[in-house]
Amino acid sequence: MFQAKIYVTLRKSVLDPQGGVVRKSLYAMGYQNVPEVRIGRYMVVDLEVADQDAAAKQVRDMCDKLLVNPVIEDYTFELVEV
Amino acid sequence: MFQAKIYVTLRKSVLDPQGGVVRKSLYAMGYQNVPEVRIGRYMVVDLEVADQDAAAKQVRDMCDKLLVNPVIEDYTFELVEV
Repeated sequence: MFQAKIYVTLRKSVLDPQGGVVRKSLYAMGYQNVPEVRIGRYMVVDLEVADQDAAAKQVRDMCDKLLVNPVIEDYTFELVEV
Repeated sequence: MFQAKIYVTLRKSVLDPQGGVVRKSLYAMGYQNVPEVRIGRYMVVDLEVADQDAAAKQVRDMCDKLLVNPVIEDYTFELVEV
């Protein structure tokens, strides 16, 4: 079995209002040395497949079809055999 | 300047309804070999600090005070000099 760790981030050109709110909150708490915060998703997906190539292909398919919005998001992933 | 990549996950004992919905959607799309999906947050925080020890201390402080709910979440982070 493989475990995919998928990191989804907003594309650089896309405004991140959630990150902006967190940055302002940190600033108000005294952390004035934080110029930027970007918030994305971290997904851990277990896959019952035999080999790593099949796992990578399936992760890419699932990201393209459901897990990631390619218009505004980028993603990377890692596979670990478990 | 340092960049912190912070990975926040729900603790294993905490139910993840969002992950459950994604798992069911994947199942309905034909991915019936996915027994579990867990969804967390991935935060990228820029820090204007001089050294790595100070950066690590500040990231831990910010996580404990604002970014992470220690009752239901765990976190890990990496620091990259940028």
